[in-house]
Amino acid sequence: MLAARYVRARTVEVGPATPTPPAAGQVQVAPAFVGICGTDLHIFHGDMDQRVRTPAVIGHEVSAVVAAVGEGVDGWAVGDAVTVMPLAWDGTCPACLAGHRHVCQHLDFIGIDSPGGLQQLWNVPASTLVRLPAGLSLRDAALVEPTAVAVHDVGRAGVRAGETVVVVGAGPVGLLIALVAADAGADVRVVELDEHRRSVAAGLGLRTLDPRAEDVVAAVDAWTGGAGAAVAFEVSGAAGGVGTAVSVLGVRGRLCLVAIHPTPREVDLHRFFWRELTLVGARLYERADFERAVDLVASGAVPADTVISRVVPLADAPAAFAALEGGAGVVKVLVDCRADAGASRG
Amino acid sequence: MLAARYVRARTVEVGPATPTPPAAGQVQVAPAFVGICGTDLHIFHGDMDQRVRTPAVIGHEVSAVVAAVGEGVDGWAVGDAVTVMPLAWDGTCPACLAGHRHVCQHLDFIGIDSPGGLQQLWNVPASTLVRLPAGLSLRDAALVEPTAVAVHDVGRAGVRAGETVVVVGAGPVGLLIALVAADAGADVRVVELDEHRRSVAAGLGLRTLDPRAEDVVAAVDAWTGGAGAAVAFEVSGAAGGVGTAVSVLGVRGRLCLVAIHPTPREVDLHRFFWRELTLVGARLYERADFERAVDLVASGAVPADTVISRVVPLADAPAAFAALEGGAGVVKVLVDCRADAGASRG
Repeated sequence: MLAARYVRARTVEVGPATPTPPAAGQVQVAPAFVGICGTDLHIFHGDMDQRVRTPAVIGHEVSAVVAAVGEGVDGWAVGDAVTVMPLAWDGTCPACLAGHRHVCQHLDFIGIDSPGGLQQLWNVPASTLVRLPAGLSLRDAALVEPTAVAVHDVGRAGVRAGETVVVVGAGPVGLLIALVAADAGADVRVVELDEHRRSVAAGLGLRTLDPRAEDVVAAVDAWTGGAGAAVAFEVSGAAGGVGTAVSVLGVRGRLCLVAIHPTPREVDLHRFFWRELTLVGARLYERADFERAVDLVASGAVPADTVISRVVPLADAPAAFAALEGGAGVVKVLVDCRADAGASRG
Repeated sequence: MLAARYVRARTVEVGPATPTPPAAGQVQVAPAFVGICGTDLHIFHGDMDQRVRTPAVIGHEVSAVVAAVGEGVDGWAVGDAVTVMPLAWDGTCPACLAGHRHVCQHLDFIGIDSPGGLQQLWNVPASTLVRLPAGLSLRDAALVEPTAVAVHDVGRAGVRAGETVVVVGAGPVGLLIALVAADAGADVRVVELDEHRRSVAAGLGLRTLDPRAEDVVAAVDAWTGGAGAAVAFEVSGAAGGVGTAVSVLGVRGRLCLVAIHPTPREVDLHRFFWRELTLVGARLYERADFERAVDLVASGAVPADTVISRVVPLADAPAAFAALEGGAGVVKVLVDCRADAGASRG
């Protein structure tokens, strides 16, 4: 079989690998489509070399077919179509014991901390598998994992039908949050500096604001009758994005922090006090989020044809990483890992 | 009658004033005891000259007796013992319409934006009055307003029995938060740099941490078995206090922001993401908080004898402000506004 491996900064190589049979409690799956995520690009840039053991098979946005079932595993059969919730927790830390296993204090994020899906056979704990419904293609199912992130974020923010929502940053996760919030009945605006990303958002039926062309706070005030937005999502990762997200919120507004900010940011805490705002951190997802994401992708609430910009065969994964690093104007690129990549099944 | 007036930075003067009868919808009360608050000291320092119209009668932590009842007011009679919830909202702004009148977008904070209680007769909207039970002295009842702040803060943080709570900053509000949280069944630690304040906290039965003598994060980790605290309150107003409050929290911990931070602060947003923390701004109080505060002061859950450091007559209010500005080692100073100040009734 073949596997794509991150070797060192800006270098992914595809080469032969030897599959091992699934251990007890594991299932061996044949990855079909694997989405390339912002975190994968951070790894590719070399930003996460302290965490990733090279050579590393990465990839965690995976649709797959069950290829073999390990000892002691019930409920799965060869040929089952699945997606993988790539988390393994220790079950014993304070976070796990409090019921928050997805943020286990010793979490193994599969695809970063242990081998991921950019290979043709992959052993994963049976507990990570999520069944796909008959009507959902393996290609579209590669969107379940990032959609689960968005479902988790929208849930953490407690978005309700009819609420006004501002999404700051229209990368893939920002767009998915906007779509999931709109599906929940919210009235959504997407703030994005980049013209191409705004046009993608518009293509998804989303309304956008350009901070270079208009005063976003004034625009939100006008839109909300002076109330300010009920919810903002900070998905830009930029210092300015934090400021925008705080500034657009009305009394008791909720700011859901999705993006990673590696360094501390200046935050207008006085506004948090004055307007009784809430900031909620959101990371990864729980199983219910994953199952809801399956439904949203299957129903078309997440329009896969628009979100998936390109599909490349596993052999071309290195070129795909390089192109994405160059900021190619794409939303989501999938790698087709199947032995018959390019065939029609997906 | 007499009134104490803020005239300009560092100057409070006591002099005669002419009472006016209560207008329709108002009640005229005779203030008994008025607590001096941190906000009053900010005014005294001259920090709020843009907001306060001088000469200004300030003071908003008030116990009083009804002296006259204006037209159209039902339910109140001369001689009733009351405290005053010093908020007047417009009822029409988006915050009011959403049910958050205490953070009305055009809030009149009585005692800052309009005349306060440091005078012998004071007209207030009838809607601001809260009845005192028979067993609660007027002296102790001056603690109801700051206790209501603490009740609101503890409520915003959602403190539950058995939870671990860290209060950063042991000024009057920090101490009251610690007492209210302890009364709710929480296990509380108070972080405070100042030795005198730590000794006051200890005198109230609270356990303290000295950041200069020990690593607070390590101490909280040891105390909580590696989990981190469930709740932190930032009541210090210092940049370092924000850092401490964020650092001590465990997964899904809640940080309640109580202190005023006039300038933006650097916040470790990565930790908010990684541990799925929540930051909740808390300002003032709602009526239910005030009523709960009456119960807590009346029951002795807030030990008034320890919290009230000193009572001075109205004529000595200028000296009391000056002494408090000098950082006199006191928790709460009350001004006795009664014509017979110094008599035994309080």
